Amino acid sequence: MPHPEDPARRAVAFLMPDRTFASVFDAPDVARLIAEPSLELLSPEPLDPRDLADRELLSRAEIVITGWGTPVIEGEMRGALPALAAVSHAAGTVRPVVTDALLDEGVAVASAAGANAVPVAEFAFAMVVLAAKRVLWAEEGYRASGRQPDARAAWPWIGSHGIRVGVVGASHVGQLVIERLGSLDVEVVVSDPTLDADQRRALGAEVVPLEELVATSDVVTLHAPSLPSTRGMIGREAIASMKPGAALINTARGELVDEEALADRLEAGDIAAFLDVTAREPLPAGDRLWSAPNTLLTPHLAGSVGNENGRLAAHAVDEAIRFARTGAFADAITPRRMAVIA
Amino acid sequence: MPHPEDPARRAVAFLMPDRTFASVFDAPDVARLIAEPSLELLSPEPLDPRDLADRELLSRAEIVITGWGTPVIEGEMRGALPALAAVSHAAGTVRPVVTDALLDEGVAVASAAGANAVPVAEFAFAMVVLAAKRVLWAEEGYRASGRQPDARAAWPWIGSHGIRVGVVGASHVGQLVIERLGSLDVEVVVSDPTLDADQRRALGAEVVPLEELVATSDVVTLHAPSLPSTRGMIGREAIASMKPGAALINTARGELVDEEALADRLEAGDIAAFLDVTAREPLPAGDRLWSAPNTLLTPHLAGSVGNENGRLAAHAVDEAIRFARTGAFADAITPRRMAVIA
Repeated sequence: MPHPEDPARRAVAFLMPDRTFASVFDAPDVARLIAEPSLELLSPEPLDPRDLADRELLSRAEIVITGWGTPVIEGEMRGALPALAAVSHAAGTVRPVVTDALLDEGVAVASAAGANAVPVAEFAFAMVVLAAKRVLWAEEGYRASGRQPDARAAWPWIGSHGIRVGVVGASHVGQLVIERLGSLDVEVVVSDPTLDADQRRALGAEVVPLEELVATSDVVTLHAPSLPSTRGMIGREAIASMKPGAALINTARGELVDEEALADRLEAGDIAAFLDVTAREPLPAGDRLWSAPNTLLTPHLAGSVGNENGRLAAHAVDEAIRFARTGAFADAITPRRMAVIA
Repeated sequence: MPHPEDPARRAVAFLMPDRTFASVFDAPDVARLIAEPSLELLSPEPLDPRDLADRELLSRAEIVITGWGTPVIEGEMRGALPALAAVSHAAGTVRPVVTDALLDEGVAVASAAGANAVPVAEFAFAMVVLAAKRVLWAEEGYRASGRQPDARAAWPWIGSHGIRVGVVGASHVGQLVIERLGSLDVEVVVSDPTLDADQRRALGAEVVPLEELVATSDVVTLHAPSLPSTRGMIGREAIASMKPGAALINTARGELVDEEALADRLEAGDIAAFLDVTAREPLPAGDRLWSAPNTLLTPHLAGSVGNENGRLAAHAVDEAIRFARTGAFADAITPRRMAVIA
């Protein structure tokens, strides 16, 4: 056993709210960090830079494991981490924690976006099936009338066989959704302006311009990051172009969609929406989306929740151990990737 | 081209309500039967034995293509089909059309149960994801409070990672569900007393007694046929044994479940149910299941609907052509299988 302060061991610390730590990390995750010879875990619990003793420990941290609610590492927080070499983020989106400046300094950053993508893709896939089966409408109609409602009178189509599903964004989630859609008898089209020729070929789905995707798909599912260039990407014109009977699934970010235009189209009654995210969360009381027909509003739960958080913890610990052993993450975020991811 | 009344050609007819024909068969299906040299299609539309001219044609039919609403082939109907050698059923359950006596006579019977199983398995899989994510409860709580409800306070678990899913019945649907569940990080257990040792091994999932499955699974999904031996198989004791937080999915038949016991447990608030079928359909007004919490009631739409019916038509036409060419169906129902299928 190396000495606890063996300089060959890299000091690692948890840096996240206690609440996040409790919901994401279990004792075995902590035990793996303690057992790893290349690491020195500074504390089995998150350190708080406002606490003097914790601040002392954090000053030695070379690797920090971050999560939901970790403050952005800049200014005073950056100053509290003078030894920082690597950030292993136990959540999907690193933007709330990591700045471009931090990457430019050469601090290595890994996110658990791949692990967090798993439940989002499962959820989006389930919503595709629900959309195809008109479950929202059928359940409401059944409840209201006590009879099987007449789908063919109400909708141009029903069923998942042979429909076109448009995947907006070949992100981690988008790619997993494409993979899952391969198990249905549907045609999959994808839109993503960041793909190069090799990536397009590897997708296993036709790549089309966004306008064409939205106007020709029976189900449109959003998996693009929220960036200045993607805000409002599903605008009024796109929403107006959706086919009668189409459905929009949003498990990505509310800002991607012009929600006023969406509410207008939903109120017209000829499309459906499955919204796990909205531009403002929680959705304010009185928002038109609350009363829009054929709309399922869920409270941002497609991503990791409950037992699914264990995947984030496992991934963050794996990456911390890999960095300690090899000096690099298996899947580091480069400044170039930072520009196009969530 | 053989002569239209070439005795080497086998006469085939549609025998089903016009409404079924219109919702299942498209022009290309009919065209395939017309184009097949080994077949003589007696009419491009269903024949009605109550019509004299149709009755004349039906007397020559060696193969009939049946569907939802075809009357049972016995008595007068059997008499109207003296040349009958084969029934290709364009739906899942052959029982409403085919008797044991007909099979014993040596009439060949094929069902489209395999094709009909596809959308049922898609639907059941989606419901597993919904159940794991507490979507019903979360949507209702979000709508009622305007805030993200606290899953951990309300349920012992949330999320699909590492849960146990119990599949009751390794039927066509059950097998497809098991296959789909392989794409989740869940443990799958199966109960089916009709499996032999080879079939158990081929399943790729642990086989356990029904009592154990129901009492230990986080999500239980029913895919057993409705038979005298399966009615009420999920009885009061089984329902009482379900884990707090568990969910029951029924896309099979309502009679499998003691619905009074289910309503009692649902009203206790600690399990959820996804019921696409009920013992009485439509579910009568005032039934306690209408007002049970954490319950999704859909009007028997998991099976083929709309565009999904095209799979049934394609399968029934494929089998009719195969029978005409070879004298046998690819997947005939034997008297032995008839005893254990839906």
